[in-house]
Formats: sequence, structure tokens, C-alpha cells
Amino acid sequence: MKIGSDTRGVYAIAPTPFQPDGSLDTASLDSMVDFYEAAGVDGLTILGIMGEAPKLEPAEALEIVSRIVRRSRLPVIVGVSAPGLAAMRTLARASMDLGAAAVMIAPVPSLRTDDQIAGYFAQAGEAIGPDVPWVLQDYPLTLSVQMTPAVIRRIVTDNPGCVMLKHEDWPGLEKISALRGFEKDGTLRPLSILTGNGALFLDFEMERGADGAMTGYAFPELLVDLVKLSAAGRRDAAHDLFDTHLPYLRYEQQQGLGLAVRKYVMMKRGAIASDGQRRPGAALSRQAAAEVDYLLARLAARDPR
Amino acid sequence: MKIGSDTRGVYAIAPTPFQPDGSLDTASLDSMVDFYEAAGVDGLTILGIMGEAPKLEPAEALEIVSRIVRRSRLPVIVGVSAPGLAAMRTLARASMDLGAAAVMIAPVPSLRTDDQIAGYFAQAGEAIGPDVPWVLQDYPLTLSVQMTPAVIRRIVTDNPGCVMLKHEDWPGLEKISALRGFEKDGTLRPLSILTGNGALFLDFEMERGADGAMTGYAFPELLVDLVKLSAAGRRDAAHDLFDTHLPYLRYEQQQGLGLAVRKYVMMKRGAIASDGQRRPGAALSRQAAAEVDYLLARLAARDPR
Amino acid sequence: MKIGSDTRGVYAIAPTPFQPDGSLDTASLDSMVDFYEAAGVDGLTILGIMGEAPKLEPAEALEIVSRIVRRSRLPVIVGVSAPGLAAMRTLARASMDLGAAAVMIAPVPSLRTDDQIAGYFAQAGEAIGPDVPWVLQDYPLTLSVQMTPAVIRRIVTDNPGCVMLKHEDWPGLEKISALRGFEKDGTLRPLSILTGNGALFLDFEMERGADGAMTGYAFPELLVDLVKLSAAGRRDAAHDLFDTHLPYLRYEQQQGLGLAVRKYVMMKRGAIASDGQRRPGAALSRQAAAEVDYLLARLAARDPR
Amino acid sequence: MKIGSDTRGVYAIAPTPFQPDGSLDTASLDSMVDFYEAAGVDGLTILGIMGEAPKLEPAEALEIVSRIVRRSRLPVIVGVSAPGLAAMRTLARASMDLGAAAVMIAPVPSLRTDDQIAGYFAQAGEAIGPDVPWVLQDYPLTLSVQMTPAVIRRIVTDNPGCVMLKHEDWPGLEKISALRGFEKDGTLRPLSILTGNGALFLDFEMERGADGAMTGYAFPELLVDLVKLSAAGRRDAAHDLFDTHLPYLRYEQQQGLGLAVRKYVMMKRGAIASDGQRRPGAALSRQAAAEVDYLLARLAARDPR
Repeated sequence: MKIGSDTRGVYAIAPTPFQPDGSLDTASLDSMVDFYEAAGVDGLTILGIMGEAPKLEPAEALEIVSRIVRRSRLPVIVGVSAPGLAAMRTLARASMDLGAAAVMIAPVPSLRTDDQIAGYFAQAGEAIGPDVPWVLQDYPLTLSVQMTPAVIRRIVTDNPGCVMLKHEDWPGLEKISALRGFEKDGTLRPLSILTGNGALFLDFEMERGADGAMTGYAFPELLVDLVKLSAAGRRDAAHDLFDTHLPYLRYEQQQGLGLAVRKYVMMKRGAIASDGQRRPGAALSRQAAAEVDYLLARLAARDPR
Repeated sequence: MKIGSDTRGVYAIAPTPFQPDGSLDTASLDSMVDFYEAAGVDGLTILGIMGEAPKLEPAEALEIVSRIVRRSRLPVIVGVSAPGLAAMRTLARASMDLGAAAVMIAPVPSLRTDDQIAGYFAQAGEAIGPDVPWVLQDYPLTLSVQMTPAVIRRIVTDNPGCVMLKHEDWPGLEKISALRGFEKDGTLRPLSILTGNGALFLDFEMERGADGAMTGYAFPELLVDLVKLSAAGRRDAAHDLFDTHLPYLRYEQQQGLGLAVRKYVMMKRGAIASDGQRRPGAALSRQAAAEVDYLLARLAARDPR
Repeated sequence: MKIGSDTRGVYAIAPTPFQPDGSLDTASLDSMVDFYEAAGVDGLTILGIMGEAPKLEPAEALEIVSRIVRRSRLPVIVGVSAPGLAAMRTLARASMDLGAAAVMIAPVPSLRTDDQIAGYFAQAGEAIGPDVPWVLQDYPLTLSVQMTPAVIRRIVTDNPGCVMLKHEDWPGLEKISALRGFEKDGTLRPLSILTGNGALFLDFEMERGADGAMTGYAFPELLVDLVKLSAAGRRDAAHDLFDTHLPYLRYEQQQGLGLAVRKYVMMKRGAIASDGQRRPGAALSRQAAAEVDYLLARLAARDPR
Repeated sequence: MKIGSDTRGVYAIAPTPFQPDGSLDTASLDSMVDFYEAAGVDGLTILGIMGEAPKLEPAEALEIVSRIVRRSRLPVIVGVSAPGLAAMRTLARASMDLGAAAVMIAPVPSLRTDDQIAGYFAQAGEAIGPDVPWVLQDYPLTLSVQMTPAVIRRIVTDNPGCVMLKHEDWPGLEKISALRGFEKDGTLRPLSILTGNGALFLDFEMERGADGAMTGYAFPELLVDLVKLSAAGRRDAAHDLFDTHLPYLRYEQQQGLGLAVRKYVMMKRGAIASDGQRRPGAALSRQAAAEVDYLLARLAARDPR
């Protein structure tokens, strides 16, 4: 079960659950998978930036892939970004052997010029092999690599394995329109576009042509419903639903701190046993936790699901 | 009329109105001042980053200061950030002579270490002179300079003229709490804290101890009412009001693009005659303008003011 | 007397002389011009980064241009880089009116993608006007903007006024070869290439196809002789001469600190009256000054000129 | 055999030899060790940035450590920098178990404020354990993390395991003087300082108080002799020797490209069988190789060793 350029819907960016002492919480891997499946998502993305992937040892990464792929009935995309191509290749091929649906690759932060960016992904695509479908991650705010629509087109054209864009630029609406325009004028083959960025602009991203969401919002059922409403053309209903979540969603979308918020809420919702992060990681202050509780209470009063 | 460490309320970050051909629109300077006064703000901040200050020539900057100070009955803070201290000093002293209430200084983007940052502001404070009250601008997302609460305390302690912080860090709630904690434990003298960042967290910033807002949101009356409700302890009412605006407010808060959104809405509201920016500047696509119109219509249906 | 794409030789990057109190030292402007003329340089470049241009007020900049153009019998290139295009245009046109030979433009540090870079220079070229010849400054180490040879070709092709490249990339030898290759294969019109970077690779830059040097080395006569020897094909003699200077040259070429070294030596040589920089600026420690003295003594023992 | 704060002399930064196809060249590991021992160095540092460490898989890294420690009679320092503390700990402890003399830790590139930097090294020191001596790597040009002398002092004071500084700042002479000044005034315990940066300032770094060199210059015997001459107070002889090497040394010290130069020369000298880098890596153009050959011929004519 591999993804392709026609993949649509919601892929949840899954965090990595840890015990309070920083060791892997494998039991929570299972409960988390069940939580996402119950929410109705279409797939999972693991070992991304929000999955604290750089903090894991290679053996742990493989253990997580193995356990989640076995537990889940959904396609699983595995983040394989690494400082070196050798480690990337090893994790990519092992993940596919374990049953992953695709891998995801982010640029290394030092890339600047268009040629450097395109050259890097050509080498990465060659390293993982032509039979592995992969997702291009475009996340300038965190990775400090800026890809124009034309560079994304070049990467997609150069690499038959690249079937999906994880769109996470901000502001990013025009980028979606530009890429869809390229498809329309025949200069870009069809490409699945799922959007991240904590869903802060998912309402309009869908209207611009996104195929769905790939983000880790702690209420994945909101993403599922919003994508469905929007795909069905029910614009006002989609915005009404989105606006209900926005006050909390915006709070979870804080750069860096957001993962602590997200894990705290997922713990409260029973998806994972502990909200701890492996060091170094941000923790919620008592005041921040109280603010989240307040926002959740307000959300519960409005969205009775 | 100078500002001090006890200044509170809403200071509107004013854009600079241009004619469609890029020349200064002096008539709109007047209408914009009237617009802000009618909205009930407590002061104005001009020639900031959102005021396109680096695109102005020195003579234009002075013309703007002069005209706005004359027109306005409110205190006016003037952004004087410059690559060099000589130009900063000249604009600061000329602005005060024209009747400004204070100046605002941002760090130059190359600063990295704590000592570099504190050293820069010591030189800037000396350059403008000890009699000029000034606002410290903390805006890491755009300026790429990261100031810890301890460094801000050091700057305030070193510089008697520094009476206010324009807080624009993101995430930034803990920074407000840390600074208020310093005041409480006696290691920091009282400091006015007004928050920016397009008001995306103004609801909680007030609860953390902010004295008000300094941002350019196109509905300044929202800022005024929110600050009042929050200061009066009416928490739920403050959040209810804030949440009504959040869908549009988030759209206006987009990095870089936000100024085009803001000017477009201010033009629609009659505050300025044209939404043009001096080159180089971002422009709204037709699709983006339609999205803004849609959000405004939804806002109008909920906030009948 | 304007420069063109066939300009060759040595253009000295001139510092701006200040009095110990930070005010402009106009008398030293004259002596400095005489010093450079005596050294046999072919032209001067003023108000560059090493000219402390951002620390000057607009009126001071014009005073410097005016005085140097009047004093010098050589063509003078004026750095007009500015945060905004309006100020850039004003200084460029005023400089040309005063008799400058060309202007020099550096990219603003925020530029990242190829399109952003090319777009910026298109706007800059339009702002100064089609009749003003200009020098493209490529200095990634300080400006953090990376231009590939292809982007430089695009800028030159887009802008008829762009006649010269101030090459200051490091490592940068392959870039010269690539650009000369473009000329050879007919995809780039002839372009003057003068190299900077404190002359640390001038020996090989000449061999790769540079037309000369544009840097502020405190012994400009070394640059003049080296360029001549290299142009005459006297390879070993060129390297012998270069190697004699390299121990000190390397010391002057230190990023940031280098200007203090250079001004100290120019003061010792009588070119300027004081080695002071306008604040904020680096100063030589006593130990550093002694190290420079030691290097100069060793140089004098080997290069008896 | 562990290093300590009284360690002196030359530690060669060893490259990782690869076959032309990118696989590890284990035979060259042996010949390289023999090459360094014959040159008279006092120790080896492996798996650093110039050792292409991020391109290796964990098992390869351990194989290299094991083989080099067994072959070498000298102390071996192992670079263990990693995006995550778990991987860092595993490599550090395994290396010490295999007989390493210490480990070396570089900051992650995202660190900005003094507190972030000190906090990171406190966590890293705790992760590897208090019994492991370690080297603090200060290399702002590549890592974009700027540590003041005061922050280095704070790290050394916080972490008893930190016994050595790999000094690689540029300009960096004043930093050595500042740290030695701290020791003199009793605010810093004794610290071994070995300098890197391709030895471009080794002549003066020794005079400022460095204990030796830690760099990968392809003529390690030059480093050995220079350190000895300088330690013996033979200033002029030290500079005479250094100056002989400077033209080539400067060429090898080019950022990024330098490793290709170094491996090419080490191959020519018989230390390793191939000058290939694992992808992505820079390669020497034919012209660059010819320039190196020219410089080597000139060097051989002057330094007859």
C-alpha cells in the first residue's frame, strides 16, 4: 500500500510518545494509532520534526516504524531526513521493507540557491532508490530553506519518486495556486499537496487546491471533517467549523512550544500516557497549561463532539 | 507629552500611505490619524517596519513625523531604527523637536550574543541622548535577534531612557511572565509592555501582564475594547470578542503579506486612499482579496459595530 | 568618465577617514586620494562596506563623493547600497551628477531564492535609471546572499547598466571560470570582473580570468604590480611578489577586524591622519598592533619598495 | 590514556578515507594513522566535520573508531556531535569503551543566546556522563553559533568533563588572550586550547597562549615544527617556517572546498589511497588540481623536507 500523486485526505503527523524518564513508550504507540484511526484519518506520518526524530537512535526509529506499521491499517509515511544520505537510505529502505507507504525528506538547512536545493533532492532521490515514493517537505520557517514554486516543479520533474508535497510555507496560499497553475498549463505533472503548519490556514488551503492536511493537530477529527466539508463545496460550514477550533488551534500552532501543547492535549484525550518530551524539549508552564485548559473548555462548549 | 514606564493602552502601528505611483500620500496621513482617533486608541507609532520606514528618504520621514504630530492629539512614537547611529540620532532628535512622545529602536539583524545586543543598545541610547524616552523593539521573527528576558532586563537597567518594551516575540507569553517576575523580585524597574505580532495572542498577553497593544490591526477598535475588557477582569467577554475577530486577524497577521492585507482593509474602511506599497512590496492577488472580503463579511455578521 | 565592461586594473576600496571624535576627516580625504594616485591605482571605490557607509548621514555621503571626485583624476565608483530604493536612487543620481564613474549595489541580506535576487536587482537597476553604469557586488560571507554564476548571468542580461562584477565570493575561483565560460559559449555578454576579499586569492583570480582587483589592501602598489605581472604572463614573478605580502595580507583580511588593521597601517603610511572608526567599530588591541608592526617589519625586510 | 587540561601539542584532524565508490577505505585508515605518527603529531581527532562524520552510518563510525584506536599508539579524540543527545551518548560511551582518549562536541546550529548555548552543553555533558573528558568545539563560521569568552568560561565551569577548547573562531586571537586572562585572574580553571581553522593564524595563536594545534593541514609536520619552535620562543624561525607554507596553506583553508584540496594532497603524499568524498562532496576541478600542484612545487623548492 503505497501513496501516490492522487492521495488525498488527512495524514496525521504523529508525535513520538516517551515515558517521563525519556525512554520510548511503546504501549502509547499502539493507543496513539488507535486514537488516530478512531478519528478517521487516512494515514499517518511518523518520525517527522514534530516526532522528535533527531532525538532517536536508529534502532529506536526502526522499532517505532515496525510497531506502528503492524498496528495500523492505514498507510504510514516515515520521515527519513538525516544529515547524511547513507543514514537516510538505510532508514528509507528498512521502512519500506517493514511496510511503510512512503518516506518524507526535508532539505538540510544549509541549502540556499535553487541549484543547491534541486541538487540535494536529486542526490536524496537517488540514494533512497527509484522504487521508493517520497514526500517533499517544504517548511521554510523551521528549516530556513526557501523553495519557489519553480524549484518545487523542478524537483518533482527531476524525481519520478516524488509524488507528494508537504506544504508548510507561511504565507503559503499563493504557492498552492502557483503549483496548481503549473499543472493546468502542463508544466507540472499531478502532485498530491497536503498542508501542514498546524492547520492555521487549512480553510483556505483547501479552497486553493490542497488535497488535504498533513499536520499533527490534537483534534484530528476536526481536520477530517473540515477536509470533507471543503471537498464537498460546503464553504460556510467548513469555515464555521474551523472558526470554532481556531482559538485553541492557534495556541497549539506556536513554533517550538506547540509540541508541548499538543502532547498535553493528546494525553488528556487518552491518546498517549505522558506528555513528556525527550531532552532537550520544551515543557508547559503551569500558567500555559491553565490557558490550554481554558481554551479546551471553551472549545468543548462550542463543538460538542 | 512623553510616554513613560506607566504608559498603558493601545498604540496603533500606523502604515505609511502612498499614492499608486509610490509617492507619499500626505492627505491620507490626516485621514489615517482621524481614523485612529475615532477608534479610541491611546497613541500612534509611526515609521516602524510596517510603516515601510526603510523605503523612505530622510526628508520624507521628517515630513511624516511633522504632519502626524501636528494633526494628532495623541502621543506619537517614532521608529528611528537605522543601519547607523548617526542617522538614528538625527531622526530621533528631530522627531522629539517636532513633538514626538518617544522613539523606538530595533536591533540590527547581525547581533547574536548577549553582549553584542546589550552593547548595541548602550551605544544607541547614548547616541540619541539621555533625555529621549525610547521603546525597545523585540521582534525575533523578522529581525533574527533573540533577546532573553535577562538581556532585556540588562538593557533596561543600562539605559534610563528605555521605558517601554514592544513585545513581539513568538511564542512570547512566558517572556511577559518572566519580566513581570523580575519586577516582582525587585531586579527590574517598572517597564511598560505593549505587545505586537498582529495581536494574535493579545487575549493571553493581557492576562500575562501586558499593559496593552502596539500593533497595526486594521480594526483598532477591537484592540481598544479587548484591552479594556481584559483590564476590567472580564475574561470571558474579552475572549468572546477576540474570537470573533480571530479568523480575519490571523489572515492579516501573515508575515510579509500582512501589510498588503492591512492596507487593503484600511482602504476599504476609508482610513487611507490607496493600499499601494512603495516598491519593493507585496500585492494582494485577486484570490487573496476575495478571501479577505469573505472574512470581512463573516466578521461583519458577527461583530455588528 | 564612466566605467564599462572593458574596465581593467586596480580599483582601491577607500575607507572613510574619521577624526578621533567620530566626525568626518575631510583633510584626510585629500591625502588619501593622493596616496592612492601615487600607488598607481586605476580608480577608486568609495562608500562601500569597508567605507563604513551605513554609519554616514546622507549629507556626509554626498560631501565625501563631491570632495573625492573633485580631488581625484581617476574614475570614482560610489557604493549606493541602501535598505530602500528611494535612498539608493537619490544617492546614485546625485553621485553621477557630481562626476562619479559608476555606482555599486549590494543585495539586501534577506534575499534567498534566485528569483528574489534577480528581482531585487531588476528593481534596483530601474530605480537608479538606465543611464547609470553599475557594479554588482557579490559578497556572500558578509551579506549572506548566495548568487550562482547563472544568477549573475541573469542579472547582467536583465540589466544593461550592469557592467562590472565585484567578485568577493570565497571560495570563488570556480565562479570566475564559470562566468568566463559563459562568455565563451556566448550566453553572457562581456563583463568586467574585479576581485575583492582582501586580495587573499588575487594571484589565482588573475589566472582564472579576473580583470583586476577591487579591494582596500593597505599596500595598493602590491595590487598594481601583481595585476601587471599577471597580465604580462609572468606567473612566477607574480607569485613571488604575492607571497612576500601574504603573511601581512592574511592578517589584514580578517573579517570585521580587518578594517582596524587596514586603517592603522594606512595611518602609519601617512595616507590618513587617524585610524579611528565611527561607532560601532572594532579597535586594535595593543597586542594586535604589535603583531601588525612585527609583520610590517618582516615585510619591509623582504619587499624593499 | 585520556587527555586533560594540560594536553599540549598537535592533534591532527583526520579525514575519513573513502573508496572511489563511496564505501569506507579501511586499509587507508591504517596508512593514514602511520602517516600521522611519522609526522610526529601528539594525537588524532577523528569523526569531526572534516571527517565527513554526518555522512557515516553509526556502525561505520564505530568501525572507524575501533580500527584507528587499535592501530594508533597516540591518544584519539572522537567527534560525537549529533542532532540528538541519545545518539551522542551512545557514540561517546562506545568510543571510550574502545579506548578513545576523549570526545569532541560541537553546538547544534540553532543555538543563539548565551543561555541556550550554556544549556545545551550542560545537557550534552550530562548525556555523555561525568567520566568522559570532552573537547568544546567553537567554530562559528561553519556552525553559526557565536560563543563569547564569558560563555566558554561558563561552559567550562559548569562541566568538569570539559578539559579542552578546539578554538576555531575567526578572527580569534583576542579570544585566546581573553581566556588566558580569565585564567590569570582566577575566574577560569586551566583549559587546554588547541587551534583549528586550517592553521591560518597558528603563528600568532601560539604567541597568544594556545597549547598547540588541532587541524587537518596536509603537512602535519609543519604544525609539529611550528608548535615546537614557538614553544621554544624562537619567534622569527617559527614565522619563517610558517610563511613558507602559507601560500599553499591558505589554498587548503578554503571553506568547503578545502577538504578536497587536503585529500588530494594526502593522496599524493601516500597517506590515503583515494581523494574521494562520500556524496555530497566537493571535487577539485582540473584547474584547481593544477593550482595545487603549482603551489606544492613552489613549497617543495623552499621547504626541502
